[in-house]
Amino acid sequence: MKTIDLNSDLGESLGAWKMGDDAAMLDIVSSANVACGYHAGDPAGILATLEAARRRGVTVGAHVAYPDLLGFGRRNMDIASADLTAGVIYQIGALQGLARAAGLAVRYVKPHGALYNTIAHDKRQAMAVIAAIRAIDTSLTLVVLAGSPLAAWAADAGLRTMAEAFADRAYTPQGTLLSRREPGAVLHDPGLVARRMLRLAEEGVIEAVDGSLAPVVADSICVHGDSPDAVAMARAVRDTLQQAGVAVRAFA
Amino acid sequence: MKTIDLNSDLGESLGAWKMGDDAAMLDIVSSANVACGYHAGDPAGILATLEAARRRGVTVGAHVAYPDLLGFGRRNMDIASADLTAGVIYQIGALQGLARAAGLAVRYVKPHGALYNTIAHDKRQAMAVIAAIRAIDTSLTLVVLAGSPLAAWAADAGLRTMAEAFADRAYTPQGTLLSRREPGAVLHDPGLVARRMLRLAEEGVIEAVDGSLAPVVADSICVHGDSPDAVAMARAVRDTLQQAGVAVRAFA
Amino acid sequence: MKTIDLNSDLGESLGAWKMGDDAAMLDIVSSANVACGYHAGDPAGILATLEAARRRGVTVGAHVAYPDLLGFGRRNMDIASADLTAGVIYQIGALQGLARAAGLAVRYVKPHGALYNTIAHDKRQAMAVIAAIRAIDTSLTLVVLAGSPLAAWAADAGLRTMAEAFADRAYTPQGTLLSRREPGAVLHDPGLVARRMLRLAEEGVIEAVDGSLAPVVADSICVHGDSPDAVAMARAVRDTLQQAGVAVRAFA
Amino acid sequence: MKTIDLNSDLGESLGAWKMGDDAAMLDIVSSANVACGYHAGDPAGILATLEAARRRGVTVGAHVAYPDLLGFGRRNMDIASADLTAGVIYQIGALQGLARAAGLAVRYVKPHGALYNTIAHDKRQAMAVIAAIRAIDTSLTLVVLAGSPLAAWAADAGLRTMAEAFADRAYTPQGTLLSRREPGAVLHDPGLVARRMLRLAEEGVIEAVDGSLAPVVADSICVHGDSPDAVAMARAVRDTLQQAGVAVRAFA
Repeated sequence: MKTIDLNSDLGESLGAWKMGDDAAMLDIVSSANVACGYHAGDPAGILATLEAARRRGVTVGAHVAYPDLLGFGRRNMDIASADLTAGVIYQIGALQGLARAAGLAVRYVKPHGALYNTIAHDKRQAMAVIAAIRAIDTSLTLVVLAGSPLAAWAADAGLRTMAEAFADRAYTPQGTLLSRREPGAVLHDPGLVARRMLRLAEEGVIEAVDGSLAPVVADSICVHGDSPDAVAMARAVRDTLQQAGVAVRAFA
Repeated sequence: MKTIDLNSDLGESLGAWKMGDDAAMLDIVSSANVACGYHAGDPAGILATLEAARRRGVTVGAHVAYPDLLGFGRRNMDIASADLTAGVIYQIGALQGLARAAGLAVRYVKPHGALYNTIAHDKRQAMAVIAAIRAIDTSLTLVVLAGSPLAAWAADAGLRTMAEAFADRAYTPQGTLLSRREPGAVLHDPGLVARRMLRLAEEGVIEAVDGSLAPVVADSICVHGDSPDAVAMARAVRDTLQQAGVAVRAFA
Repeated sequence: MKTIDLNSDLGESLGAWKMGDDAAMLDIVSSANVACGYHAGDPAGILATLEAARRRGVTVGAHVAYPDLLGFGRRNMDIASADLTAGVIYQIGALQGLARAAGLAVRYVKPHGALYNTIAHDKRQAMAVIAAIRAIDTSLTLVVLAGSPLAAWAADAGLRTMAEAFADRAYTPQGTLLSRREPGAVLHDPGLVARRMLRLAEEGVIEAVDGSLAPVVADSICVHGDSPDAVAMARAVRDTLQQAGVAVRAFA
Repeated sequence: MKTIDLNSDLGESLGAWKMGDDAAMLDIVSSANVACGYHAGDPAGILATLEAARRRGVTVGAHVAYPDLLGFGRRNMDIASADLTAGVIYQIGALQGLARAAGLAVRYVKPHGALYNTIAHDKRQAMAVIAAIRAIDTSLTLVVLAGSPLAAWAADAGLRTMAEAFADRAYTPQGTLLSRREPGAVLHDPGLVARRMLRLAEEGVIEAVDGSLAPVVADSICVHGDSPDAVAMARAVRDTLQQAGVAVRAFA
C-alpha cells in the first residue's frame, strides 16, 4: 500500500492574535510543523497545539525560523552562522520541552519562510541549521524542498531528510517550484490540486507548467490551513488520496 | 567534611551588550544560574556560557524569568498561570537544548528577579512554576529562598529543593532577608561577608541585624558577579570557605 | 442638538496577524484609539489605519499601553515611573509621527488595558502618564473612566479630560462599572445596549444593576469592534443615537 | 574660519545593559546620533541622553535602524519598502516626542548599521528611507556616506544632506571606504587619525591606502565612543581640530 505524509504549519497564533484553524488541520494532516516562538507562537498556545496533536496522534516537528515576529519570519536576514545555529537549537529545545509536557516527542525540523527558502540553496546558512540539529538531536529528520541541494548537504552530514512537495504550487519541467513571480505559480482549484498530489503519490510525477511530467520524489506534501479555503483544499487532498487507497501517514 | 554550594547569575549578556564576567565567576562558583532569553541572554551567548561551564565542571541551572527584557525581569507582572507555566517550560526546554549542544545537562531551576520574589510567597504563581518543572522534568531541583513557604509547596508537589542564602544581604532575627528598603540591607565588606558565610556553612546561623544569631538552613550561597567588586566579594567567600576546610561543591 | 462621541480601539493588527475590522469601525465611530506598537500595531498597519481615519474624518488618539505584546497590554506591570513616563512619550511621539505622515494630528491619549485600569485608581502610575502628556503636548486630551479619581488628578495637572462610558458594561448604582467577575457584567443585546447609551446621551443616566438610575457624565462612549457581533452592536448604538437626533461627533 | 561637525552614536544602552559613555562623548561631539529603540535604546535612557545633549547644546539626530535588538541593527534585512518607510517614521516620531519632552528638536536622521550600509547603494531601500523623512518632516537633514549615490538620490528628492567621513577608517584612492575585510581598514592611532581628520577639514582630502590624496567632501566626521580608547581618539580629533583653528560645530 502506498503511503505519503501530509504536513502543515500550526501553532502560529500569538497571544491575542489567532491564526489558522489548528483543530481542523489536525484532523487532516499526519505531521504538524509547530511554531517555536521566533516567527509565531506563544508558549501557552504552542502547548495547546501540541496537546491537541498528541490526542489525535499527529507527529510534530519544530518549525524553526529567523527571530522576526513582525515579519513573520518571511524576511531574509543576514544572520551570523553562530547566531543561527544557537537560535535553531534554542527553538528546538523549547519545543522539545513543551512537547515533553504535552506527552509527545519532536520528530523533525522544518525551517520556516525565508529561512526555508534561503537554506534550500545557501550553503553557509544551511550548514548552520544542520549543525544545530546535529548538536541537539541527531535523530531529528530535516524537511527539505524536493530537488534542492539542501538534501545532499544534510545527508552528507548524516541527517535523515524528508523531501516535500507543495500541493498548491506549479512546477517547472525540471521538478522545481515555479517562482511566485510567474503567472499561475499558485493553484486555487482544490480538485485539480488533489488530483496532482494523487499522481505525485502514485507515480512520482507532477504535471509541469508546460504540460510535461516532472519527476518529483517527495515523502510529504505541504498543505496550508490559514483560511477556510485552504482547509478545504487540504481536506480535498487527503480525501482524494485516501479514496484512491494511498494512506496518509507521518514520515518522520 | 562540610560542603556548600556557591551559585551566581550568568549568561546575562544580550547580543552587543555585555554584562558580568562569566569567565571569572565560573572559576569561583559551583553552580551557574544561566539566563534563558526572557530577562537576558541570547542563544549564542548562552551557549558560550554553557560550554565554559562544562569545561570547568560547573553545574548549570535554568534562570527562568518573566518575559521582560527591557525590565530585566525585575518588574512584577500579573501573568496568567497557564502563560507562566508554559513560559517556564519553554525557557527550561530551550536551555536544555543548548546544554545538550554544549555537552552537559541542566540540573536545577532558579527563578529570577521579580518572579523569584513573587513565588517565594504568592502560591498561585508558585504553583504555576512548580507545575512547569513537574511537566518537563521531575528530576530538576528548584532553588528556593531559605525560610520561604515556597520550599514546602515544592516539596509537597514532589520536587527536590535547594535552599539558598544571599551572601551580601542582612538578615532579620527570624532568618529572613532584611528588606532592601531598610538601612544596612546590603553588605559591602568582602571580609565580613565571607566570615558570615563561613559561619552559615559551619554552624547554620547568620548574625542578624540585632546581633542575635538567626538560624538559616541553606544548601547554597548566592553571590553576584556583575561588577569587579562583586567578583572580588565572591572570591573572598570562596577562599574563606575553602581555607576553613569547607568544600565548595554543587548541590543539585 | 445633543452630541456624544463614539470611540473604539483600532490599529491592533500586528504584521501577519489581523485583528478587528478597522474599515467597518471607521464608518461608525467619531474617535479612533490607535495602537502605538506596545500592546499591538506595527508601523505600516498603524499608518494604514491613520490614513483610513483621515479619509473618513475620524479623530485619532494614542492608545498607549504597557510594553507587552504577548500579553496584549492586559497584564498589570509594576513599572517604574520614569520608564512609564518615557514609554508613554515614546508611543505618543511615534503615533504623532505616523499621523503627520498620514495628514492628520493626534488629538487625545487613551491608555489601554491594564494601564487604563491601573491609572484609574493608582495615583503613582496615573501621575507618570499625566507627566508624559504634559511633557510632549499639553493640548492632548486624556480619556478617563467616568467617575474615576483620574479625572481630578489630570485636571489638577492642567490636562483636558474626556470621560467615557462603556456601551456593553453593567453599572453599579454609584455609576461605576460592575466588576467583570460579577454575573451580568457584560451586556450582549445590541438593542438594549443602544437604548441605554441613548439614555446616557440624553439624560446623563444609566440604569444600574439594581434598577436604579445611576448618574454618569460621559463625553464619549466606548464600543468594541473585535468581532462581527461587536461591530453590529456598535452600529446599533450609532444608529439609535442618530435616529433620536443625537449627533455622533468627536469630542477631542 | 573653517568649521566641521563631529558626530557619534549615543543612547545605545538598553535597560540594565549599559553601552558607551554618553556623558564623555557629549563633551566632545557637536552632533549626537541618538538610538530610537529599534537597534538599541529604551525610552527612559534615550530621554536621559537627550536631556544631557540639551544641557550641553549638542544637536541631536535620529539614529534609525532595522527592527533588530538582538543583532544591534547590524544584520541586513530584506524588509518591504512600506514596512521600512513606516518603521523609520515611527522611530523619528518617537525620538521627536522624547526630544520635545527634553526641550530640544531633532535636526537630522542618520541610518544605523546595516541600514546605513544598504541604503548607501540600494536604491529601493534608500527611497523608502527618503520617503519616510519627506512624510514626517522635510526640514530634517539626512546623513549620507561621503561619495555614495545616496547623496544624489536624497537631493533629487528635495532633502538636505550632510556628508560624513569616518575618522578611524582607511580610504581608497577614489575616496571611498576601504572594506573592513581588507587589512588596515580600521585605524587605531589617535594621533594619526586626528591629523588625517584635520587635513580633511582643511584641505578636503584624506591620504588613501596607496599614499595618494583622495578628495573627500565631508560636513561631519563620525567618531566612536564605545570604549575608553574610542573616547580618547574622539577627544584627540576634537583637540587637534580646535588647536589648528578649525571650529567643531553642528552642521544640521
